[in-house]
Amino acid sequence: MREHMNIEEDSGTTVLRHDSKYEPDRSLLTLLFGKPLATADAGEQTIGKAIGLAVFSSDALSSVAYAPQEMLIILAAAGSTAFGISIPLAFAICALLVILTLSYEQTIHAYPGGGGAYIVSRDNLGELPAQIAAAALLTDYILTVAVSVSSGVAQVVSAIPNLFAFRVEIGVAMVILIMMINLRGVKESGYAFAVPTYFFLITMLATIGFGMFRYLTGTLGQVVNAPMDILSEHEVVQPITLFLILKAFASGTSALTGVEAISNGIMAFKEPRSSNAGKTLVIMAFILGTMMLGITFLAHQVGATPSEEETLISQLARTAFNDRGLPYLLVIAATTVILIMAANTAFADFPRLGALVGKDGFLPRQLAWRGSRLVYSRGIVALAAIASFLIIIFQASVTKLIPLYAIGVFLSFTLSQAGMAHRWWKSGRLEPEQEIVERGSTIRHDKRWLFKMIINGFGAVCTLVIMFVFAITKFTDGAYVVIILLPTLVYLFFAIHRHYQGLANRLSMETYVSPARIARHRVILPIGGVHRGTLAALRYAKTLSDDITAVHVSIDEEETMKIRQKWEIWGDGTRLVILESPYRVFLEPLLKYIDEIDETRQPNDIITIVVPEFIPRNMAANALHTQTAMELRMALRFRKDIVITNVPYQVD
Amino acid sequence: MREHMNIEEDSGTTVLRHDSKYEPDRSLLTLLFGKPLATADAGEQTIGKAIGLAVFSSDALSSVAYAPQEMLIILAAAGSTAFGISIPLAFAICALLVILTLSYEQTIHAYPGGGGAYIVSRDNLGELPAQIAAAALLTDYILTVAVSVSSGVAQVVSAIPNLFAFRVEIGVAMVILIMMINLRGVKESGYAFAVPTYFFLITMLATIGFGMFRYLTGTLGQVVNAPMDILSEHEVVQPITLFLILKAFASGTSALTGVEAISNGIMAFKEPRSSNAGKTLVIMAFILGTMMLGITFLAHQVGATPSEEETLISQLARTAFNDRGLPYLLVIAATTVILIMAANTAFADFPRLGALVGKDGFLPRQLAWRGSRLVYSRGIVALAAIASFLIIIFQASVTKLIPLYAIGVFLSFTLSQAGMAHRWWKSGRLEPEQEIVERGSTIRHDKRWLFKMIINGFGAVCTLVIMFVFAITKFTDGAYVVIILLPTLVYLFFAIHRHYQGLANRLSMETYVSPARIARHRVILPIGGVHRGTLAALRYAKTLSDDITAVHVSIDEEETMKIRQKWEIWGDGTRLVILESPYRVFLEPLLKYIDEIDETRQPNDIITIVVPEFIPRNMAANALHTQTAMELRMALRFRKDIVITNVPYQVD
Repeated sequence: MREHMNIEEDSGTTVLRHDSKYEPDRSLLTLLFGKPLATADAGEQTIGKAIGLAVFSSDALSSVAYAPQEMLIILAAAGSTAFGISIPLAFAICALLVILTLSYEQTIHAYPGGGGAYIVSRDNLGELPAQIAAAALLTDYILTVAVSVSSGVAQVVSAIPNLFAFRVEIGVAMVILIMMINLRGVKESGYAFAVPTYFFLITMLATIGFGMFRYLTGTLGQVVNAPMDILSEHEVVQPITLFLILKAFASGTSALTGVEAISNGIMAFKEPRSSNAGKTLVIMAFILGTMMLGITFLAHQVGATPSEEETLISQLARTAFNDRGLPYLLVIAATTVILIMAANTAFADFPRLGALVGKDGFLPRQLAWRGSRLVYSRGIVALAAIASFLIIIFQASVTKLIPLYAIGVFLSFTLSQAGMAHRWWKSGRLEPEQEIVERGSTIRHDKRWLFKMIINGFGAVCTLVIMFVFAITKFTDGAYVVIILLPTLVYLFFAIHRHYQGLANRLSMETYVSPARIARHRVILPIGGVHRGTLAALRYAKTLSDDITAVHVSIDEEETMKIRQKWEIWGDGTRLVILESPYRVFLEPLLKYIDEIDETRQPNDIITIVVPEFIPRNMAANALHTQTAMELRMALRFRKDIVITNVPYQVD
Repeated sequence: MREHMNIEEDSGTTVLRHDSKYEPDRSLLTLLFGKPLATADAGEQTIGKAIGLAVFSSDALSSVAYAPQEMLIILAAAGSTAFGISIPLAFAICALLVILTLSYEQTIHAYPGGGGAYIVSRDNLGELPAQIAAAALLTDYILTVAVSVSSGVAQVVSAIPNLFAFRVEIGVAMVILIMMINLRGVKESGYAFAVPTYFFLITMLATIGFGMFRYLTGTLGQVVNAPMDILSEHEVVQPITLFLILKAFASGTSALTGVEAISNGIMAFKEPRSSNAGKTLVIMAFILGTMMLGITFLAHQVGATPSEEETLISQLARTAFNDRGLPYLLVIAATTVILIMAANTAFADFPRLGALVGKDGFLPRQLAWRGSRLVYSRGIVALAAIASFLIIIFQASVTKLIPLYAIGVFLSFTLSQAGMAHRWWKSGRLEPEQEIVERGSTIRHDKRWLFKMIINGFGAVCTLVIMFVFAITKFTDGAYVVIILLPTLVYLFFAIHRHYQGLANRLSMETYVSPARIARHRVILPIGGVHRGTLAALRYAKTLSDDITAVHVSIDEEETMKIRQKWEIWGDGTRLVILESPYRVFLEPLLKYIDEIDETRQPNDIITIVVPEFIPRNMAANALHTQTAMELRMALRFRKDIVITNVPYQVD
């Protein structure tokens, strides 16, 4: 039954190629996550432009569901007359979008292997900027999930107001749903999400088109029964200040989150990767800009009011289509679904980045390994847990989450663009045809280096300015959390890195001297009774050593007598030590006994504690048994040359 | 350094008496919980009547802090004119108290070893009633903690209204405080709590006495700035119905909770135990009745209003003493403290009962063992956790908790009294001087059996009726939770019991045939690299068997080459198998390899997987390393004759 292919056998080393057909027998997991992918190669799971747009653009496109609304919520502080300012702000955001698109288009071609902010910063700026980018991006992905899902919930609640009280529950359920889809693997989720993206594009562009048509023909009315303006009804109307406008602008820039997603995921595209990814980016930017301008303009024309109870999209759609009929419901459904897909983008990127950082030794290395579905399942589960936590804490309110959102995004934009600008500058220093390798990445001379440097440099400056505008205007609304969190994360990443480096040094074979062979192997066998489980452990202990001592901690005199009698029959002459424990404690007498043995020990003696352990079929039944092996292992973990073994005894 | 006393040595059995001076080196724990009790015997920690009253009566006495108020809250539905009904209700409750006291006095003498409802039901009624009593009592103890602490918080908030917003936090902090005191051991908590109990008795009796004096002299005024009656302001005034009166009466019976505490704790009293405990019970009942009547009467005279914001005790005290001066503050402080002590009573009884039920095999057996402070620490921690949970869920509101409270209490009263009545009936069947042993308990003839049977029988009927009144009138307010919970718990207890019985049968040596000695011992050594940790594991593996195979799961081609080269130098000729894993999964190839070996295995072959494991000084750093041994143990737990050993390597 040797299915492995034996490849070579020399000097005692056998190399077996594992054919990866391992299928775990866990029917519930299979039911939930699908059968493990068997023969497909990870590399084969690539996607074209159309699917790529669906998978990687949903984050950016879906932001139109909340960005215009969040601008209005800020402007509402100055009364509804300030709402008109949203239109020039939307144009400013589109200008920024153009700058970012040009910048990232260059990145995609310079980094055909995938040029997220992390890799670009690492290659061109160094370790610290790279870890700052990592911290910023990881925070950003978590918030993408929380914000997108919360906005999705807001759409649902707009259509079905009775669900308002269950916002948090619906949000968490959505996160769990996305998590499960992602645990199945990237290809299926790619296709599964293509249809709804295009459904969103069609319904949203139809709404804008129809709305514009009615506006131009003068038949576009006002929102009927507009929701109460929740913010301005309580507060005194403030004057329109520059601060307020900048703050509204900052909220609006949340529309740009997700523009970088394609540059992280180039490897998922079909060849020619860079070209396909770049074209997808431009198409996406064009659609995003159109939607942002269209929605902001029409929302203003119909007199929509920002509210927690009904979204701007909902007000716009029911005004454009005159009522809450089928077209309205399609728009709401499509918007909700694209927001769920936006969260899905983060589910693709978060584990991928976690794996990269883990491989570099700044996060636990395990993140770089794959689950059996060819995906980074640990990262997926972690992301779902943290995002659900945020949704619960912030009660699924987009407005409360936004101040935490865009700092990380713009910080990573800045680092990425600055890294690219620096790269072009180095490229300009080279002779034509010359190339150098720096930090593992190859830099070639590019004759348009100056032009490219200016574009990326300008992008870096713009995004840096916006990051500061965002941080300052939203500091007290929640941005301070991120400003504290990011350095903390970076510190943690470096602490992890130091741990791995220190470990490697201490484990190094450089000054290693082989210790003497183990001279004496003593076995201690703690027993709670004399039964089949104990005897299985005794049988095992006999293969380890002839020097075995069974130890019983006596809590009950009568019980102990029975054990002594039984041991004489079944103990096969093995020495039995009884430790009396009048106060009914178990672990302490045992530890003390081990201590005493330990003191008389020679340097090359070793002690193995063989612990019999019941394995009940039902996991819950474990709570009914002591985990002696685990407790001993914890208590003796720092003791040299003491090994604890549990011999499982399958009860059922 | 052998501190153990070697007592006997015959036929290979060595008996060592453990002198229990084991002191774990855990300075933080010692700081929090005190030094472990070393030489004191658990049996020596007994208490006299004065201390006994303090330890066991606080639950009952402290109920006067909420019982009269909860009656008024129900009556408030019929408007403040209905408040006068509270006085006859208080008399009815005192009558019930007399019946209970007579009943329990008999129990104490019949059960000098401690006759809680559990033991009395078990001995006289059988397993099912006993487990019902256990479920009822355990629920009751949890609610005692939640209700008493919540009422304590309400007293604090009455004196310092600014703390109203922090009710839940204060409550949880109190529970944690009590938990810590209890983890120190019963004797210290007994003394620590004696002073405040008497402080409460003095201040409360002084308040009642002074109030009565002012009432009789006509100088007792009305509550100044009485709080808003929170219940009646919203609702339409209802008519005074029998249902409403019964409901108010049911709330008032919460004053009787805790009367049984002494009968559970007889073993803690000095000899003559029964006599001391019985006298303590009578003294306690007398004080409780006096306070209940006094507080209810005076509260009505001063026109106190039930409220969540200010307790009845607070209104009464500041009216009796004319203002919020020192006497008022002393009353509030004393009431708060006695309520905390009431919670402490439950902390003494809950783990004790848990241990009894655990010893009988209806709860995890570990509950019957002691922590190093001679107390049942597991039960204490569990109680604190559940009570905190309830305080959080019910926002520290006594009124919301009360409907869950008294059903368990009265159910256990009924079972206990019914058990005693049945016992007297059996006693009456015996000849004089004759005695029989039933279910391990000795029954003697008692010539006053008929009288005693009537007293206990009458007690059983009364408490049964009250339980039904309580369950019906408070069903929709929350009693239904307990009505669902109790059968669930009883079912769970029996499921646990079945598990233990089944296990004992399967482990039995009756039909045991010794298996053959293990013929071949194969060792598999999974290695992630070649370093000091790996070599320590190899050195250990060599003591187990000569048949060792090192296995490396290859995720990175380059890394694997290095490992092969290093293994040729350091591997000491041991066979190395390389499992290629192109998809970066780790566990699956290893499990598959083990499967293949498993298939070719003979019946008496055994496989040990020796896993090298880093032990970093810092526990948190464990998250940075894979727990391969644990994962293998989980994956292979149902596999016969496969043992997983982790060889710890202390890195620092």
